[in-house]
This record gives sequence, C-alpha cells and structure tokens, in this order.
Amino acid sequence: MTPSSEKHPNADVRMRGFVERVTVETAMAWLDNQLDAAASVRAELVPLCEATGRVLAEDVCSQVNVPDFQRAMMDGFAVRAADIHGASPKNPVTLQVVGECFPGQAFEGEVTSGIAVRIMTGAPLPPGVDAVLPVEKTEYTETEVQALVELAAGKNFGTIGEDIRIGDVVLSSGRVLRPQDIGVLSSIGQAEVSVWRKPQVRIVVTGDELLPAGSMPEGCQIVDSNGPMLEALVARDGGEPNHPGIVPDDRDAILAALREEADVILCSGGSSVGQEDHVPTLLAEHGELEIHGIAMRPAGPLGMGQIDGKPVVLLPGNPVACLWGYDLFAGRAIRHLARRPTDWPYQQVEGVLTQDIKSPEGRLDYIRIHFNDGQVTPVKASGASVLSSTTRADGFVVVPTESEVFAADSTVEVFLYG
Amino acid sequence: MTPSSEKHPNADVRMRGFVERVTVETAMAWLDNQLDAAASVRAELVPLCEATGRVLAEDVCSQVNVPDFQRAMMDGFAVRAADIHGASPKNPVTLQVVGECFPGQAFEGEVTSGIAVRIMTGAPLPPGVDAVLPVEKTEYTETEVQALVELAAGKNFGTIGEDIRIGDVVLSSGRVLRPQDIGVLSSIGQAEVSVWRKPQVRIVVTGDELLPAGSMPEGCQIVDSNGPMLEALVARDGGEPNHPGIVPDDRDAILAALREEADVILCSGGSSVGQEDHVPTLLAEHGELEIHGIAMRPAGPLGMGQIDGKPVVLLPGNPVACLWGYDLFAGRAIRHLARRPTDWPYQQVEGVLTQDIKSPEGRLDYIRIHFNDGQVTPVKASGASVLSSTTRADGFVVVPTESEVFAADSTVEVFLYG
Repeated sequence: MTPSSEKHPNADVRMRGFVERVTVETAMAWLDNQLDAAASVRAELVPLCEATGRVLAEDVCSQVNVPDFQRAMMDGFAVRAADIHGASPKNPVTLQVVGECFPGQAFEGEVTSGIAVRIMTGAPLPPGVDAVLPVEKTEYTETEVQALVELAAGKNFGTIGEDIRIGDVVLSSGRVLRPQDIGVLSSIGQAEVSVWRKPQVRIVVTGDELLPAGSMPEGCQIVDSNGPMLEALVARDGGEPNHPGIVPDDRDAILAALREEADVILCSGGSSVGQEDHVPTLLAEHGELEIHGIAMRPAGPLGMGQIDGKPVVLLPGNPVACLWGYDLFAGRAIRHLARRPTDWPYQQVEGVLTQDIKSPEGRLDYIRIHFNDGQVTPVKASGASVLSSTTRADGFVVVPTESEVFAADSTVEVFLYG
Repeated sequence: MTPSSEKHPNADVRMRGFVERVTVETAMAWLDNQLDAAASVRAELVPLCEATGRVLAEDVCSQVNVPDFQRAMMDGFAVRAADIHGASPKNPVTLQVVGECFPGQAFEGEVTSGIAVRIMTGAPLPPGVDAVLPVEKTEYTETEVQALVELAAGKNFGTIGEDIRIGDVVLSSGRVLRPQDIGVLSSIGQAEVSVWRKPQVRIVVTGDELLPAGSMPEGCQIVDSNGPMLEALVARDGGEPNHPGIVPDDRDAILAALREEADVILCSGGSSVGQEDHVPTLLAEHGELEIHGIAMRPAGPLGMGQIDGKPVVLLPGNPVACLWGYDLFAGRAIRHLARRPTDWPYQQVEGVLTQDIKSPEGRLDYIRIHFNDGQVTPVKASGASVLSSTTRADGFVVVPTESEVFAADSTVEVFLYG
C-alpha cells in the first residue's frame, strides 16, 4: 500500500508537512521589500483634538509669530530703562503710574519719560517702554512707583516670536504627535493637521470550529480569540482593524474577503498545508504566495504574499502562534504603512536567565518568560494553543536563527509586554 | 512713600510673590493622601472590543474549560495506542480508516480495536482513541493507514482545560488589559468586562488673552495651547477630558466651572497671586486651598486643594509650567484615579551630561534635554512660556530638591518623551 494521490487530488499537499522553510531573515527581507513598493496609504486632515499619536504627513510651518507682541514675563511696571538708571534702595527713582496693562488688551497711548504702567504677566508691553521692573523691586501706590533697582533695556519681557517665528518648521513630517505638540500646533492657529491615514487592515478569521466573539464556547466549538486579539494589536500599531466576523471555511467566501478593499490583509486559520487550509491555495491561484513555511517556532506555517497588490499575511490559527506571527511580521507591516517606527512597541530590558534555553540551530524561537527582579524564567507548559501562557508571561526572549542555546546565568535581551 | 494697602484691598496679595513655598515632596505627600481618601471612580461594563488599555475592576474567573474537549494537536490519524504497539517502518501496522474528524464537528460513533479515523489539527478526538498518529509517520489510502511508529497513549492531543480550567482566575483586578488578554477573555465567552470608569477631568482654562483652539492668533491675543495639550495628556493617562472652551476671567464663571461634576478639576491660568488670579481665592473661599506655591521651577505658582470633595490642581498659564505641573501632580492624580501605575509613562534611560546643570538647593528643577547617542544636553533658551522647547526636547532630567548641581560627564536619569 502506498499513498494514493489519484483518489485525493490534494493528498500530496493536504497532509504533508512543509518541505522547505525559509529563515525569518529571508521572510522579513521579502516583507520589507514588498512594503517599500506599497504606497497605498495617503494623508488625511484630522482635527487637532484627534491628532495625538498620529503621524504627521508633512512639515508644519508657522504662518505666525508666537507671540506676535512683546510680552511681560512677570508682574510689575513697564518702564524706560534709562529713567531708572542708578536706582537703588538707598536712591530710589520715582515714576508716575499712568495705567495698567492686562493680558489680551493693547495699552492705549505711549509711555514717555518719567512714566510707568502697571503690567501683568502675559500682557503686551505698551509702546515706548523697554523693560519690566519686577514688583518685588518696587514700592508703589496707585499713582506712583519707586524703582529700587536699575535695569538694562530688554529685561523681563519676551520678544516677538520668542516661542515661534513666522516660517519656522515647528514639527517635521513623520513626527508621532505628542501632547505638547498638540499645544504648539494650537498656538500657531492650526485647527486641523495632515497625518497619514491609518492603514485599513482586513482581518479574515476562518475556522468552522469557531464561534464569534461574545459567544459562550459550546461542545467542540471554541470562541474566536484571534480576531479580537488582532483587532487590539492592529489598533495598537496605528492601523484601523476591520473584522466583521468569522468567514466560513469556504473557498468563495474566503476569496471574497481577500478581495475586499484594504491596505493589508491578515488571515488567521486555514493557513497551513492541511485539507481545510484553503487560504494558501487561493492566494497562489489569485495572487501570489511568496513565502510559506518559516524556520521559526511557534508560527512555522506562516505565509505571506499579495493579492490585487495588497500584502497578505497568513497567520496560524493557534493563538500563541497567531500572536507571535503578528508581532514578527504583520505588526511590522502595519507600523511601516502607518509610518511609525517599525521596532516592536515593547520595552526592552536585560535580564539574567535562571535556566538554559535551547533551540535548534537554523530556527528562531519565541520563549515566553517571567521577569522578576532582573531574573528571566521561561513560562512552563506553553504549547502554541495555550493563549493564557502569553497573559501569564511578562514578556519574551527571542533565540535567533543562528543560536542553539542561551545558558543559565547569561544575560539576555527581554521584551516586556504591557 | 510706602505701599498703600488701604486703596487696594487685595494689594498685599495681588502683586507680592509667594512668601513661603512647600517642597515638591510635601506637596506630593498631600496629594497622595488626598487621593487615597477619594474613591469617586466606579466600575463599568465595556464591550471587549473597547477594553484594551482599560484597567480590570475585578478578577475574571473562567466559567468554562478551554478547550472543553480533547483536541488534536496535528494532522494525522486518531488511534488506540495499544493497536500500533511495536509498529516500525520495517514492521508497519495496518488499521482501517473509517472516517474523518474535522474541527468543530463531533465524530459520530466510537473507535474500536483495529480502526483509525483521519483527524485534522484542532478537531475533537473521537471516543475510544488515546493518541494521534502524525501523518508523516504513516502511509495511507482513503481506507487504510499504515503506522510506521508506535506511540504512547496520550500523545499529540491536548487535554480538556489545557489552556484554561473552570474556576481559574484568568486575569486579576488591576490588570491593564493587553491585546492577548482580550483574546483570552474572548475564549472564555466574555462579551464584556468590568473595568474602572475613566476619571472625568474638567479642564478649566481661563485668560482674557486667550482665543479658543482652532483660531488664528491675533494682535495681543494668543491661542489656547494648554487646553488641547491637557486634553491629550488626560486621555493618555486614562482620564476622560472635558474642555468645553475658555472660561472668562470672571469669578462667577470660574466658580460655576469649579462646581461642575467631575472627578478631578484642572485649572490653567489665573492660578498665581496676581490681580487677575481669581482661582486660588475662589478655591480658598468655597473649598480648600491646601497648597499654593511649590519650591520648583517651572510651575512654582502651582496650587492644589479641593472643592465639593473633588481634587483641584491649579496649573500655571505658562505652557511649559503647565506641562510640567501636569506631569508632576495632575497626571499622577489621574493615573491614580484610573487605577493605573502612578509612575510617569515615559521611558527611563541613563545618559551622560555634556555640561553642568545647576539648580539652587531646596528647589526641584525640570530640565528639558536633547538625548543623542547617550549624551544629554540641556535645550537652550527655554523660558516657561516657550512651549516649542518641549517639542524640541527629547525628554527631561529632574534635579531633585536636595541637589544643587549635576556635573558634566556624570550619569543622570533621563525621561524620554514620545
């Protein structure tokens, strides 16, 4: 008896393993190259109040000076410095107080010799003065002020454009906008700002064993965990997830989903080489399946390709493999298209291993770990189907393709979740 | 001539400096104590798809096993291990194939001696079998399979509850939910989850010199930058900002805003001891002004107190001081009420100073810095009114109250923006 491929047209494919796997490095180089060619994501204008964390699509150049007037830096008296030359506590100089300057109000009239104007922090300097005498260096009544110190011209007020000058590039294209950036943009009169549109990410979850999120698991059906997890990951990385529900394990339904409008397509499930794994063959027939099978664990069956010019990442259905495959490839693609830094959004620290970690040479391994007081211990009992192992883990260690062992007591790089 | 307080009822207050300033440590201890007493923020149920980044309000205990069936871990044949005892390539054991097991479908019938069932990864084991024979260890047709290896019972399938068991606490109260947590919660059938409500933060921006965000600056008026910046900061720290617009510099309007329903009130502007600074006196009259004037730079005029039991932070109008005062006190309060870690959400690294940083003893200083290849250089020309200095800065260094100088070439802690 030999395997009969006549009776099962797909038998040679459907139950064999992967004949050859490419390295993670090769797969990543392919992805980066693919993404450099993709430029589907354009800019959009968003109101300033929605712009934090978004990525500037162009340099922002100020049309205004901030401030556009000379501004008192403290409470005191606006004076002509020459008038109080030589003033000291023993030799105070008296000036007449002719009014007050409040923030937001231009002072009516000009200050001439021998005259001072009371001024509040932030108020515009009246014409004719060249210094602000701090209140604590004076004695004063409503009509007169005694200067107890002399001052150089230019003291204690801000100049026009001290914060921002007309023509200044206040923030450059590519900036991930911070709260203080929003403040600066508001100060120069920007009501909205041009940012890169969030890449639209179609999440295609297949599997007849799956119930939609929000169901209770029942019998031999399990509830979709990859869909909600991928939605959260995509949003974290600056993408706009679109996961309308489980796609039936049906070639037509899957193909229709792959053909929907999107910037990236992530498939979860049906991505390996089994009988029910329609996604790779569909991609090969209607687009291109460039990578299938990667020398890594978990997520070895991961595939990548394109359809209608859209990058497609085929993620394994096993949830740990799905998370790791996302982090290694899909997240990178989304961050790239969102014009964010492509590095992992995980804090990187060093730690000391409490035990050996072994990994065959030629394969990249993802090791979930506990991190405690600088000590790194692998999480026990962590098959690719045990998603709860990733919630118990504080982070992970990567054993690169060319390494076989990280010895106990050695220092390793750790990436921390959360 | 002496200062005349008869003519100006507030003259002793309105233009004097702060007589005495408390240390940052004293102010922070007061704030922490105040917040321990505050418990206004309650839990709410949110759909799972909106729960990432939110903080669990209670332990989540599973009502189900995940999976609730024995699950094939690979493609192959479900068998009774005893049937293939002694099998090897030279001595294959032949079994009859009576059907197929697919994911999500219970197999009809029981497997008896001499029988195998083809099985796909994720499918439930049929009754009567105790191992999964990997496809690559077989030769097969549609009706027969040859086992080329023997197997121990229990091989290659996952047990009931291998991921999660009924009664397991899958995530604990206080957890800031990660993407994989969302996946796990979905897998146990949670459609929604109890998280702490976001603290409601009323942002009260005053200043007659201010135009609302979205305006162009004009004449001696500037555009509100603190309001939009504070909205972004509050959202970052897990609060729900409420900033309906500039509040007129008018005691009644400000008091009405202070009395609005909220968990925390942040005031920007009008917080010092000048003539137009109504907020501290209003707070003292209608609530409590516990702290006013702190030994720090910038943001020395910062105040804190409470009204109607709500904590109130009075932030300076100068935007750099506003940012720093927020980060030091207000953000801490909001993160605390949101049940997040109260530490700064900034990455902390070490760097080497390129020049001395001096700060008077007894005062805590905030130094904006450039961080380049491990080198730390203070940002030039950075008055408290120059908000753009905080966007040019990569982060900041804090010179603590008791320190006077950080010497060039010394190693300092740096907090990185963005």
